[in-house]
Amino acid sequence: MHIDILTLFPEMISGVLDASILKKAQDKGTFNYNLVNFRDYSENKHLKVDDYPYGGGAGMVLTPQPVFDAVEAVKSRKKTKPRVILMCPQGEPYHQQKAEELATEEHLVFICGHYEGFDERIRQHLVTDEISIGDYVLTGGELAAAVVIDSVVRLLPDVLGNVESASEDSFSTGLLEHPHYTRPADFRGMKVPDVLLSGDHAKIAEWRREESLKRTYERRKDLMDD
Amino acid sequence: MHIDILTLFPEMISGVLDASILKKAQDKGTFNYNLVNFRDYSENKHLKVDDYPYGGGAGMVLTPQPVFDAVEAVKSRKKTKPRVILMCPQGEPYHQQKAEELATEEHLVFICGHYEGFDERIRQHLVTDEISIGDYVLTGGELAAAVVIDSVVRLLPDVLGNVESASEDSFSTGLLEHPHYTRPADFRGMKVPDVLLSGDHAKIAEWRREESLKRTYERRKDLMDD
Repeated sequence: MHIDILTLFPEMISGVLDASILKKAQDKGTFNYNLVNFRDYSENKHLKVDDYPYGGGAGMVLTPQPVFDAVEAVKSRKKTKPRVILMCPQGEPYHQQKAEELATEEHLVFICGHYEGFDERIRQHLVTDEISIGDYVLTGGELAAAVVIDSVVRLLPDVLGNVESASEDSFSTGLLEHPHYTRPADFRGMKVPDVLLSGDHAKIAEWRREESLKRTYERRKDLMDD
Repeated sequence: MHIDILTLFPEMISGVLDASILKKAQDKGTFNYNLVNFRDYSENKHLKVDDYPYGGGAGMVLTPQPVFDAVEAVKSRKKTKPRVILMCPQGEPYHQQKAEELATEEHLVFICGHYEGFDERIRQHLVTDEISIGDYVLTGGELAAAVVIDSVVRLLPDVLGNVESASEDSFSTGLLEHPHYTRPADFRGMKVPDVLLSGDHAKIAEWRREESLKRTYERRKDLMDD
């Protein structure tokens, strides 16, 4: 998978994509990414990328020209037709099913704004998906794009290996995970439930299923109603 | 505000917290943060921080000892009683209201796991809040913690300045933002709505309110039902 990331703050992205599991996935050639500072595409003599909003109001708005030209440049380098994803609070709420859908693509382009708004023509005529990672406001789209990329890349073949199994994740089963315990059996007087030390695998499976249901019911009844 | 972040991958955090608006907030002294690799607190001779799960199963589980000791160490350095926040998919879904609540605290401690699960005794006896940033799975809690920190710090006094107004954000008003347009009025044949060029401020305000309602209705009817 190839990923292009359009941002005015490329330094916010590299640290998270070049560590741990995502670093290993790059080393294996499973995915690679390219940071594009769309200011480089500005035709303005001062390389401006934003301007005042028509109709007045606070804040600046990203102008269409540099964003259109940057997206067209990255598109022209690949034969595949990419998904062009705008990270914004007005987007479709992100879910694990969307991560699974994006993981089947060959080429993704992310557009990250920063405090400014986007000119509406970018939304209407350039992007294929608008995504929000949750109902809270961030200083920019960079962290949101990194979240989506992390969740997608970990689903690509051979990325996770044996350290974990994506199919047992919370949300893949529709329930929250059951509690986990490890050594010591007694830590400062706090003890591991007897059933987990019993060696009775049928009972352990039953306990885990019950705890998973109980936790989902107590914390996220909405997941059971779907 | 002081923030301690417990992680095995400190390099994933610094890049995002040391850029743009969050960098400026640090320079002003509005917030500062400290990365704690809790492996340094392991009493295991090989500095192990995880072990096999009791009862069997795939994956490793973070042992309580290094996490308890690291949290107690950072607590002992401050007189304030911090919120101790565990980032995990089983946590309370994160919302803008929670960001506003956390923005009133003086000291936050974040615990970030990575592919491993957490020993349940950490959840039950050490943390005050379990937070999930959304219904999707990440390779670790670092990006999730960075998202929460970003959304909280931008709400602190004097962080945003005039570049934007937190009170006009999506979610603060309960509605999605109206569309924005900036120059040029005609970009490759794509035009700005006439009303925004009219100079009639009452009409512009009415158009924006209608577009905001329309967009919220079309995309996020759930926000209107609350």
